[in-house]
Amino acid sequence: MGKKEEFERERERLNQLVLKQDHLGIKRFFNLDSAAYQDGELSGKSKELLGLVASTVLRCDDCIRYHLIRCVEAGYTQTELNEALNVALVVGGSITIPHLRRAYELLDELAS
Amino acid sequence: MGKKEEFERERERLNQLVLKQDHLGIKRFFNLDSAAYQDGELSGKSKELLGLVASTVLRCDDCIRYHLIRCVEAGYTQTELNEALNVALVVGGSITIPHLRRAYELLDELAS
Amino acid sequence: MGKKEEFERERERLNQLVLKQDHLGIKRFFNLDSAAYQDGELSGKSKELLGLVASTVLRCDDCIRYHLIRCVEAGYTQTELNEALNVALVVGGSITIPHLRRAYELLDELAS
Amino acid sequence: MGKKEEFERERERLNQLVLKQDHLGIKRFFNLDSAAYQDGELSGKSKELLGLVASTVLRCDDCIRYHLIRCVEAGYTQTELNEALNVALVVGGSITIPHLRRAYELLDELAS
Amino acid sequence: MGKKEEFERERERLNQLVLKQDHLGIKRFFNLDSAAYQDGELSGKSKELLGLVASTVLRCDDCIRYHLIRCVEAGYTQTELNEALNVALVVGGSITIPHLRRAYELLDELAS
Amino acid sequence: MGKKEEFERERERLNQLVLKQDHLGIKRFFNLDSAAYQDGELSGKSKELLGLVASTVLRCDDCIRYHLIRCVEAGYTQTELNEALNVALVVGGSITIPHLRRAYELLDELAS
Repeated sequence: MGKKEEFERERERLNQLVLKQDHLGIKRFFNLDSAAYQDGELSGKSKELLGLVASTVLRCDDCIRYHLIRCVEAGYTQTELNEALNVALVVGGSITIPHLRRAYELLDELAS
Repeated sequence: MGKKEEFERERERLNQLVLKQDHLGIKRFFNLDSAAYQDGELSGKSKELLGLVASTVLRCDDCIRYHLIRCVEAGYTQTELNEALNVALVVGGSITIPHLRRAYELLDELAS
Repeated sequence: MGKKEEFERERERLNQLVLKQDHLGIKRFFNLDSAAYQDGELSGKSKELLGLVASTVLRCDDCIRYHLIRCVEAGYTQTELNEALNVALVVGGSITIPHLRRAYELLDELAS
Repeated sequence: MGKKEEFERERERLNQLVLKQDHLGIKRFFNLDSAAYQDGELSGKSKELLGLVASTVLRCDDCIRYHLIRCVEAGYTQTELNEALNVALVVGGSITIPHLRRAYELLDELAS
Repeated sequence: MGKKEEFERERERLNQLVLKQDHLGIKRFFNLDSAAYQDGELSGKSKELLGLVASTVLRCDDCIRYHLIRCVEAGYTQTELNEALNVALVVGGSITIPHLRRAYELLDELAS
Repeated sequence: MGKKEEFERERERLNQLVLKQDHLGIKRFFNLDSAAYQDGELSGKSKELLGLVASTVLRCDDCIRYHLIRCVEAGYTQTELNEALNVALVVGGSITIPHLRRAYELLDELAS
């Protein structure tokens, strides 16, 4: 089982622990979160890239991983992802580099 | 040894490494930190919940774990913790969700 | 017109600019935000204090002002607010002090 | 002179104060910053939107204003900007709302 | 009255509003804060520069102003300050640039 | 292989994954990052301490580790590092303590 599958399985397992509490506010937030990346005037694909850059400048590894997988699935090329991650690096500074390193490690696995 | 005991043992071990340096400023900061959560005009219990929400919006897993354990010991119910974590989620956004997942994983262990 | 009234009028004016866009996701987020502070297992009063501390450690003046006004209206005493703001100061560090200063300036006006 | 012109004039005036120091590192950083938003595999237009969302979740009013103006000039519609700002709101939480309000105030002026 | 004097007067006025509350924890925090920048194994001068860079990457204008004034009084040259601010810019990214601009505006006044 | 060697080897391995993409902006950023800590009007040694404090208040374990190792190699004593980390603790608050603990764990290994 690769990094991607392991990540998605663990994410799903923990989401179940959150959602089984059945808290209305939290469930609605999860729904808003999903809805924000649906196709609209902007494509879902372009919103995934927004999510990737937002996650990188806020330096959340799990969020970066999630959006990176979605971005690759949506068809972004490696060069396009480089350019988006470069925007995140310039905005967020060298403090984002450890997260960038882990992003490229995952990209390396996804590409092989 | 469960997640809670392991967490507390490691925290204690590392605190000793910090405090054996005997730096006056750091020791005083640790004292201020403990004092902030004592009973006063607000109960220590209600301050632990403030600590939990502050830790969640600032996205520090160790701090969340610490205050979550203290909150459960102080007698908060699962539903009350859900409501506090929901405030943190709304204030801090989806970037807090990975931390929320790990909080619920610990809560799940503490409840069993 | 005092600081409080001015703040609330401006906040209302700008909220109208946001909401007249009629974007479903944003409107739902605003609803979730309001709902998070309603009475539940935890009182609305205690959730306002959570909002105040979260806003302080995240260093958002407008959010601090809003929750401070609500906290005073909900009946918190000055001493109770001092203790909650002290938790925020210890968690968030000296970088929160400029926000603390402006919080106390507003409290000073609200008290007179 | 409207908000946009005033903002751009002040930004230019202060940039001159920074750059007249002639510090090589800072000048190179400013160049990297400009280069990050040029057309490449991703269009400059789509990178401006990345910059807008990054600025919003990091809660920097000046950065939001700058990218908002560029996004409007690049041809984004109000609805497209709503969707991008909604992603930022969901990722960054209610703590971004005061910045969102000011973003919509500027958008309101730009539209008129 | 220049920017520096105005800043210091306002800071002092608001500090009085905080400290007249006479909250033990807050007073002790203010003392710890002052003590952290005293001469020790590291000079007070070198600690002011640490404070300046910390304030810049955390993007707090008031904190930047305070440490910038102290750094100039401690005898740092413009070139030394440029190098320190460049470290902050690289670590913290372009999101710090609006704060950098305001720092250089104050430096410009302090130099004249 | 100790913590230090393991950290440096992993850092090098992942840097290779980033740099083999050969993205001009990212490579230039890495160069700016290295250049920022070179000897200039301020010594490289004093800039490493700036990097350490900036990394601590921004709460990035990898960045703290990197600058801590460089600071020890540059000849800072334990007492000097205590004072710098104390500045970071006061500025950044108790939310930095988990990172401080891990910093002292590494220092403990480096000293033995």
